Amino acid sequence: MAAAAALSERARPLASPNPGVGAIIVKNGVVIGRGWTQAGGRPHAEAVALAQAGEAACGATLYVTLEPCAHRSQRGPACADLTAGAGLARAVIGMCDPDPRTATLGAGKLRDAGIDTRILGWPAHMLGLAGHEVHLSQGRPHVTLKLAMSLDGCIAAASGESQWITGPAARAHTHRERARADAILVGGGTLRADNPRLDVRLDGLEERSPRRVALTSGDVPEGWTAIRSPQEIAALEGVRYLMVEGGEQTASAFLAAGLVDRMLIYRAPILLGDGLRAIGDAGRHTLDAAFAGGFALEDRRMLGSDTLEVYRPAALERPGMGDS
Amino acid sequence: MAAAAALSERARPLASPNPGVGAIIVKNGVVIGRGWTQAGGRPHAEAVALAQAGEAACGATLYVTLEPCAHRSQRGPACADLTAGAGLARAVIGMCDPDPRTATLGAGKLRDAGIDTRILGWPAHMLGLAGHEVHLSQGRPHVTLKLAMSLDGCIAAASGESQWITGPAARAHTHRERARADAILVGGGTLRADNPRLDVRLDGLEERSPRRVALTSGDVPEGWTAIRSPQEIAALEGVRYLMVEGGEQTASAFLAAGLVDRMLIYRAPILLGDGLRAIGDAGRHTLDAAFAGGFALEDRRMLGSDTLEVYRPAALERPGMGDS
Repeated sequence: MAAAAALSERARPLASPNPGVGAIIVKNGVVIGRGWTQAGGRPHAEAVALAQAGEAACGATLYVTLEPCAHRSQRGPACADLTAGAGLARAVIGMCDPDPRTATLGAGKLRDAGIDTRILGWPAHMLGLAGHEVHLSQGRPHVTLKLAMSLDGCIAAASGESQWITGPAARAHTHRERARADAILVGGGTLRADNPRLDVRLDGLEERSPRRVALTSGDVPEGWTAIRSPQEIAALEGVRYLMVEGGEQTASAFLAAGLVDRMLIYRAPILLGDGLRAIGDAGRHTLDAAFAGGFALEDRRMLGSDTLEVYRPAALERPGMGDS
Repeated sequence: MAAAAALSERARPLASPNPGVGAIIVKNGVVIGRGWTQAGGRPHAEAVALAQAGEAACGATLYVTLEPCAHRSQRGPACADLTAGAGLARAVIGMCDPDPRTATLGAGKLRDAGIDTRILGWPAHMLGLAGHEVHLSQGRPHVTLKLAMSLDGCIAAASGESQWITGPAARAHTHRERARADAILVGGGTLRADNPRLDVRLDGLEERSPRRVALTSGDVPEGWTAIRSPQEIAALEGVRYLMVEGGEQTASAFLAAGLVDRMLIYRAPILLGDGLRAIGDAGRHTLDAAFAGGFALEDRRMLGSDTLEVYRPAALERPGMGDS
């Protein structure tokens, strides 16, 4: 299933706003079909994998990150029907589709066709489906907050300099993250101060530069979309993955609104002391609030001499009293 | 050599102000003697290991973190003489003793006795000898700065609460670090606000509580030593390892003075936004200054849901320009 989830990453962002799904068909220990949601959303991952496998699919096992769709569309047959008719012996599904047109119906069609069907119930973000789940459950894009800071939480020196705190490897990683997003957002202050390009500067990915959005009450340049509050991200048509890049007020506003699903901290091994803070008033004025709005470390790696830390929100228990 | 260095840790802090040395004697692949500097500084590590090995030392290899001492003392023979007379075939030495009474003389005595002698030249901190080296080269204690902070570099919430940001595992680790220090220092503000005990609360180590020092122009309670500037740590008699525990002004003053040899950051997975900063004016107002006064990551580990990051000072190259 982890391999199918890795495959699904290839669907991002070109399949958007359709969920990026990955599928693998295995028979006698050999992979006989692999697929992921194609650009524009069709064909679906299962259809690609089944076409690859051909008649060999008979008696094989399908691994698919998302429950096969049960609803017919003018753009192709329902994957549940296609899968049910392929003679598979087993199907392993990462998670139920939260889309009410499919939820449990897709798996039901497979079981009705005599396929031994198991649903793992993995968390959406481990299946590359976080954007799909947040869209259906909360009606808004999945938000990644990106921060580049010092060991002591500053995004600029007291002199005002902020370029660059992190090194080339960290900045290249940011460009890769941008290439996977549907839209990038900065605050009005950052827009006016830096006039950022927010594009993707990686060889071969220049065309993947996402939509540009600003959180501002002022005007925005041509090609930009303005929103006035973090909540307005719900109105960004077709955006499933949004990357928020700051500055401090924007980051704080999204955190205070509870609209951060994933936080990337690129951390340089320096101190900036009385420089500009990465986060200001983020609604965490007490330790109770800070731990309730806490985080769980999901990944950490070195990028040159910088560290990338990846967090997801997690309500934490406040450490017990007792003296130091 | 790493095993001998690990053994030398057992000498801390009881051997202080003598350097804590580790020694291992190996013959035919079997360890036949192990020693570390005993409480009060004598016997030395080599003497303990040689006594254990007895006549079997003949033809064996000695691994010792520090060059055997060449100067006679009223408290015992010079280790170089003792070692030279033990019939060893080989000696592997971690580093030359920066003490001018021994430097290269100890190794010379071994070579004169026909022992194949090799000096590895490892950095002092990898041999448990950082305090010894800083004492001899700079005439002051080795300083560890300890900070407990949030992801965004705060040591207290905006409400003023700071107990506790980190969990029990991180706090127990701090007590272990205290038990290895000769003295602990806090600022006058912390002393007045928290009246901290700064003792070691680990079973069996209660007696190891180090001396208490305050950086303050005011009065200090009985049992405390006051100093008025970071530079005055040079006058702390017999202190080889000093642990600085904050608050913000104290941490900043030591950083600005270039008097931090090792930095421990205990980091909780929370944000505190507009809380109290860990570091203020630490003399790093520009990116040039911040990178010149940068750090290298030496170790990192999870302590419960907190992370311990261990840094040593390292002048870093400033990341190249080029746009984001």
